[in-house]
Amino acid sequence: MADPRAALPETVALLGGGVIGGGWAARFLLNGVDVRLHDPDPDAGRKVGEVVENGRRAMRRLTHAPLPGEGRLVLCASAEEAAAGAALIVESAPEREQLKRELFARVEAAASDDALFTSSTSGLRPSALQADMRRPERMLVAHPFNPVYLLPLVELCAGEATAPEAVERMRLICEAIGMAPLVVRREIDGFLADRLMEALWRESLWLVNDDVATVSELDDAVRLGAGLRWAAMGTFETYRIAGGEAGMRHFMEQFGPALKWPWTRLTDVPELTDELLDRIASQSDEQAAGMGFRDMERRRDDCLVGIIQALRTRGVGAGAVLEQYERSLMSGATEGEPSAVDGDGRPLHRAHVMPEWVDYNGHAHESRYLQAFGDATDGLLQRLGVDGAYLQDGRSFYTVETHLSHLREISAGDDLEISTQVLDADPKRVHVFHEMRRDGEVVATAEQMLLHVDTVANRAAETEGEVARRVDELAAAHARLPRPERAGRSIGVNRGQPSG
Amino acid sequence: MADPRAALPETVALLGGGVIGGGWAARFLLNGVDVRLHDPDPDAGRKVGEVVENGRRAMRRLTHAPLPGEGRLVLCASAEEAAAGAALIVESAPEREQLKRELFARVEAAASDDALFTSSTSGLRPSALQADMRRPERMLVAHPFNPVYLLPLVELCAGEATAPEAVERMRLICEAIGMAPLVVRREIDGFLADRLMEALWRESLWLVNDDVATVSELDDAVRLGAGLRWAAMGTFETYRIAGGEAGMRHFMEQFGPALKWPWTRLTDVPELTDELLDRIASQSDEQAAGMGFRDMERRRDDCLVGIIQALRTRGVGAGAVLEQYERSLMSGATEGEPSAVDGDGRPLHRAHVMPEWVDYNGHAHESRYLQAFGDATDGLLQRLGVDGAYLQDGRSFYTVETHLSHLREISAGDDLEISTQVLDADPKRVHVFHEMRRDGEVVATAEQMLLHVDTVANRAAETEGEVARRVDELAAAHARLPRPERAGRSIGVNRGQPSG
Repeated sequence: MADPRAALPETVALLGGGVIGGGWAARFLLNGVDVRLHDPDPDAGRKVGEVVENGRRAMRRLTHAPLPGEGRLVLCASAEEAAAGAALIVESAPEREQLKRELFARVEAAASDDALFTSSTSGLRPSALQADMRRPERMLVAHPFNPVYLLPLVELCAGEATAPEAVERMRLICEAIGMAPLVVRREIDGFLADRLMEALWRESLWLVNDDVATVSELDDAVRLGAGLRWAAMGTFETYRIAGGEAGMRHFMEQFGPALKWPWTRLTDVPELTDELLDRIASQSDEQAAGMGFRDMERRRDDCLVGIIQALRTRGVGAGAVLEQYERSLMSGATEGEPSAVDGDGRPLHRAHVMPEWVDYNGHAHESRYLQAFGDATDGLLQRLGVDGAYLQDGRSFYTVETHLSHLREISAGDDLEISTQVLDADPKRVHVFHEMRRDGEVVATAEQMLLHVDTVANRAAETEGEVARRVDELAAAHARLPRPERAGRSIGVNRGQPSG
Repeated sequence: MADPRAALPETVALLGGGVIGGGWAARFLLNGVDVRLHDPDPDAGRKVGEVVENGRRAMRRLTHAPLPGEGRLVLCASAEEAAAGAALIVESAPEREQLKRELFARVEAAASDDALFTSSTSGLRPSALQADMRRPERMLVAHPFNPVYLLPLVELCAGEATAPEAVERMRLICEAIGMAPLVVRREIDGFLADRLMEALWRESLWLVNDDVATVSELDDAVRLGAGLRWAAMGTFETYRIAGGEAGMRHFMEQFGPALKWPWTRLTDVPELTDELLDRIASQSDEQAAGMGFRDMERRRDDCLVGIIQALRTRGVGAGAVLEQYERSLMSGATEGEPSAVDGDGRPLHRAHVMPEWVDYNGHAHESRYLQAFGDATDGLLQRLGVDGAYLQDGRSFYTVETHLSHLREISAGDDLEISTQVLDADPKRVHVFHEMRRDGEVVATAEQMLLHVDTVANRAAETEGEVARRVDELAAAHARLPRPERAGRSIGVNRGQPSG
């Protein structure tokens, strides 16, 4: 398998740093791509920083797979300055056709010849937006969804002048940053997702306008029922199942007549009068019950992370996308760049204590120490050549035994460093010792026995080839280091002596 | 708090045993209510049995709270026979107004005087359905969503003749079986949820009809993007957050103009020609890729369980409904019931492997084993008298050392039992050994040393009083048990012997 991350540009330019532009920034930075961003808002730097921090927090919860080192964010004084030298230029300016059209024409002059251009518009046609470009064949729509750093969907839509290669190039870039590109085969206003969202939205507005229901009741009508199904299946698969044993055609015929019911006023649109805006805004305030915008964002992200993880277990929808992305991260992690080692040649892993690691005692829960040690083990395995392809081949290392010592409590916000020493190895086993330090002081240790397994036959198997060679090499190098004092401990009440 | 389950009738009559009637059967039976069901389909017994089995399977995964003993299902030869003696009569017959209207009038004659009547119609007005009843004040719509045993939403809608007490009575019944009743304040065709679903559905049909997209592309356009948000938040809260710092009014004003775009044909309805039906049915077959209907149902249920559990962690939407339901199940369970111990007097802790515990290897991450063992330790500490007041007083036990052995992988959905043996204790320490079992087989063990600490002075301290007494009592009782084989282990490559 070719490394999907090879499709990634080194640098992207982002024109616009609002909710969508900031979300793109988070996606790219967290995938190791440098970002040059321009937004006329003098406060854009702070706002984008907050979105990126949200994205960082969400990604840490979403996956244990190794993300590459973060890219660098540079704020630029003009769109042209941002675009210079970038291989991909992503426009997320306000939804005004003329503005976007002029922006593309203007920036093209400052951009390199092989740069790719995309617009994040949620509904304007690419044929219109590319009309004033000198080389419109390299421009298309790539429409993502908020929060961009979590939702996998991105709609790709070509304009009349767009070259198929441009669409393909963007498709590969999106896949490399963990997204699920959906190529819209016919250019229409609103593409696919926004037409569907807009239908729901128009009907919702009517129901508030006609005082049938409040915004909070309407949200419950979605999220306590059909919304749960939509997250997993969308509409058609849901109805296929609802058809029972008789299937899709039966469902269509049974509920077809309901389509004739006169309940919809959707091609009419309610006038957004001040009164309607006030009603919606005040009902929405009531629903929020004083919860601030940033808190709501974080709660939303936590829910989305949980939902996507739940779907991953079943390999469904957004969960299947995450699985695929994690495999590519595993395969991308090894090659090239050696990760950090300490002065003794021991691999180093860095971790940060997240607020949710803390339990009722006010310190990180004991299991979170092991989570961090597990990440350090993953880092070691990558160094040994255990990558996505290796896992795909049905080989892996499993932890069969762990001895943990907690020497100091760790608290939210602490920065930790874990160094890993290989104590011993045989053809099937690697015996390691981790030391976790905060500001140089050892706060915990973990001794682990890793067993090499054939994951298909589900039994121990000998390492071979490059992995075997690297295990031997590291074991030999570390054999020169002193044996850690706490290695080989067993647990017992040691009467008459103070405890460790 | 009064027991919410007091609202439950002993027996309900279900008229109709299709997908919806069968789902009601599962909800009621699993909540300890007897069900008398009539359906003219001679195969109804088998079909309902399969839906109830799906429901049983889903509820076991959804909650660890103690469900009451199951109710009894009786199939009846006629609607009148089913209705006789039932306190609640739920109609889930085909969506034909005249049929339902006659059914209510006919069954009323056979029913007891204080019986409550509901219709599961997804769109017909209760005023029409109750028109021929002698006492229409006791009839309303209670519209649930498929799968009824999992989705919490049920819309309650009164007709012109319905008494407010009837709505209130049904509201309490629905809450007692874990649902979230949404009272529709104005009687309209399609109520709230189906109007919203229908809007999405009509737009979807147009996009297939006009050959813009396939059913599979449209499902992806929902479930990889907005559908994930709808599950957590619905429409309005989503857009409130999308408005960024500027909030709801800003969002409305920014995207208001899009409402004028001419992309919707929703009050027109595509003619359900044979050609369109064929296209949808064959695209749907392709999407299903040979997966059978029952398998799709189970995958749907697993996804819904995972999503609802993910939301419970954050107390949001369907997760908040589940929390509330579990509290009522806990309070309904016998007061003062001592927590579980196994046959050897070892405290027992039950755990369920959550989807988000699973890492890229497809099994629970090693740290999650320790999370479950930590919960078992918490259970032990509560039994020793370490409660909120004790912690408040500045005393606690900290884990200082842990030795974990992983013997088998555990997977999402597994039910685990952890038994805890006190191996030893002194005034400052408790030495424990946990065994984690799945279906009786030991899958992991954890040996731990717990240190009693003064959390204010942050140093080891002796236990006193009741806690000291209980530690001694448990240690003495467990001293009679055999010492676990894996206790006292240390880690090392054991050359010439197979590893544990």
